[in-house]
Amino acid sequence: MRKLNSSFSMIAVLFVLIFIQIGQQEVFAASDKKIKSEAAVFNIETVAKGFEVPWSMEFLPDGSALVSDRKTGHLQRLNIETGELIKISGLPKILLKSKIGAGLFDVRIHPDFADNGWVYIVYATGSAEASGLVVERMTLKDNGLTQSQRLLETKPRVKGKYHFGGRLVYLNGYLFLTTGDGYFHPHLAQDLTAHQGKVLRIHDNGDIPIDNPFIEVEGALPEIWSFGIRSPQGLAVHPETEQVWANEHGPQGGDEVNIISAGQNYGWPVITYGEEYGGGAIGEGITRKEGLEQPLYYWLPSIGPSGMEIYSGRAFPGWKNSMFTGSLALKHLNRLVLDGERVLHEERLFEDKGWRVRFIEEGPEGFLYFGVDGGKILRLVPAK
Amino acid sequence: MRKLNSSFSMIAVLFVLIFIQIGQQEVFAASDKKIKSEAAVFNIETVAKGFEVPWSMEFLPDGSALVSDRKTGHLQRLNIETGELIKISGLPKILLKSKIGAGLFDVRIHPDFADNGWVYIVYATGSAEASGLVVERMTLKDNGLTQSQRLLETKPRVKGKYHFGGRLVYLNGYLFLTTGDGYFHPHLAQDLTAHQGKVLRIHDNGDIPIDNPFIEVEGALPEIWSFGIRSPQGLAVHPETEQVWANEHGPQGGDEVNIISAGQNYGWPVITYGEEYGGGAIGEGITRKEGLEQPLYYWLPSIGPSGMEIYSGRAFPGWKNSMFTGSLALKHLNRLVLDGERVLHEERLFEDKGWRVRFIEEGPEGFLYFGVDGGKILRLVPAK
Repeated sequence: MRKLNSSFSMIAVLFVLIFIQIGQQEVFAASDKKIKSEAAVFNIETVAKGFEVPWSMEFLPDGSALVSDRKTGHLQRLNIETGELIKISGLPKILLKSKIGAGLFDVRIHPDFADNGWVYIVYATGSAEASGLVVERMTLKDNGLTQSQRLLETKPRVKGKYHFGGRLVYLNGYLFLTTGDGYFHPHLAQDLTAHQGKVLRIHDNGDIPIDNPFIEVEGALPEIWSFGIRSPQGLAVHPETEQVWANEHGPQGGDEVNIISAGQNYGWPVITYGEEYGGGAIGEGITRKEGLEQPLYYWLPSIGPSGMEIYSGRAFPGWKNSMFTGSLALKHLNRLVLDGERVLHEERLFEDKGWRVRFIEEGPEGFLYFGVDGGKILRLVPAK
Repeated sequence: MRKLNSSFSMIAVLFVLIFIQIGQQEVFAASDKKIKSEAAVFNIETVAKGFEVPWSMEFLPDGSALVSDRKTGHLQRLNIETGELIKISGLPKILLKSKIGAGLFDVRIHPDFADNGWVYIVYATGSAEASGLVVERMTLKDNGLTQSQRLLETKPRVKGKYHFGGRLVYLNGYLFLTTGDGYFHPHLAQDLTAHQGKVLRIHDNGDIPIDNPFIEVEGALPEIWSFGIRSPQGLAVHPETEQVWANEHGPQGGDEVNIISAGQNYGWPVITYGEEYGGGAIGEGITRKEGLEQPLYYWLPSIGPSGMEIYSGRAFPGWKNSMFTGSLALKHLNRLVLDGERVLHEERLFEDKGWRVRFIEEGPEGFLYFGVDGGKILRLVPAK
């Protein structure tokens, strides 16, 4: 009887182990299969490998793409068909401190790139104790960058950690840049004499637009477009309305989606749906206040949003006007269904993969590309 | 060695069993403790027991409440402090067929109840093969109903199943009633000569408002306020805007929240975010169409929404303008954070309880009451 019992126990344990094993196999096998989601059926393809923190991807007119890596500070040209990567030379000196989240951020091209070769890059400068963000316009030729022009450098230089911002979009001759509060300086997000915790707007040649909202305010930095922002790591132009949309990391809870309008105060750190790490109220401990904007949507618990793309391609008709965001904290690809300025629904893709999705970029053929830490670039292609 | 192995196996199995046991104990113990949710800390209290399908609850000026039970067809007066229930006599003949979801639905009182004693009840009539909905106004005195006046009876009578609707609200002298498509008759939701799949509006004395949107349309039923609705089991007046909000069950997926406006077509069964049970397109297989309203928000997978209350009390400041809905399918209490006509966030409470929440009602002291199938009435009270 004793022997029977122990055999039975061993069989039970064996079954548990087999069960765990089957579970794991299913997770890995799924990446090669057709995946049916709420509004699209697709295959996942691996486009390229060998990145550390792939931060940003921008397609060039010839179908290749530029990819920035925040951690290594490398800018590379990716052949989409072969996965081959060529290092771009001629980058300026970048503050590379991965421990505090500094390095090379967004890369964007000018719409007339085919004629002028203009590439915009955003990177950290200075030291860990006194850092800033730079927007630089350079000219790309034969995989080398030349003719550098520094369009913007944030001030004051501050001790920064994680909350650098560093997202850039081009819209109708303007550049919009997100800047974070540097983690240590929430109060700067409400301070118009500092660039931190803002969205900034400049012309594509670095000039300051004369209709920027605080241009006539004594002491205010003229590049400021909006303020009261914490750690904005996603920025996109809505393909239909041409409004600028952003997301930001809240503290513990309260990650936000906002439409970024001139002169608006998005509330950080006065109001937030989040709380201090470990619990406790922030600011006035309230979620609403007259004169401060409510978010369009918020994630609680925090997903840790990174990157943003509002889909407009033809490959996935069911995703038209869906907003895609990476999730660093809850490790998935987040889809919000938009109807005008409203979020109708949220879908979470790839919750079983463990991917820290860092950026999302719609390709010229409408395929959805995204980079994951550690680090591959993948794409979603309609299933045949 | 063999003996050691088998002992180890037995210990491993024991640990697994202990672990499962601990997990279960935590779940049950939680119901008696202070619960910290995203925007409120509360205790759960049991107010009354002994219901089958508690469908609706309405507070009377003296602090007691009327409670309807769809399955038994009973209307009872509940002493909130003692949990004592007194049966109300004098109800009309009700079609009680729980298998198809027929029975007694909402109970509401007139705002001048203290003077006129008017109570409105909604119930199924006819037979399982040919049923309709009735709105009846009665006078309550000494726990008996008298002086019945039938204000509305839906037509045509049809074979019905589950999708009866039966939610009623009073607003500024008008009554709004939801009617479902009867499950078998999706096309009737687009048919203005039938009452099914609609929101209807009448005066509180049964008269038809002369400004109803289809009153001059040849053949259209004059009570129709809006149409294109599937199975609407939640209805509430927004306490600030005085708009009428409703929710409805989609088919497989695509449960909706809508603001109900005059003459609008909410799309069923032409457009939906859901699909046929088991898969496959419904209607035109699309989610948007010119002239058809988009929902304000949708749940996919379906939660099976039942009941609705938009909170306006003082007991829970963090819940101001939150919309509460019961979930029959995913068994929880659903909270949507509203900002104007926008849903900012969704929270799911009590996902571990297995409660099919059927209705939610804000009490005069701002406590949140809700009924669960099978069947208790519970309330949430701010934690001391």
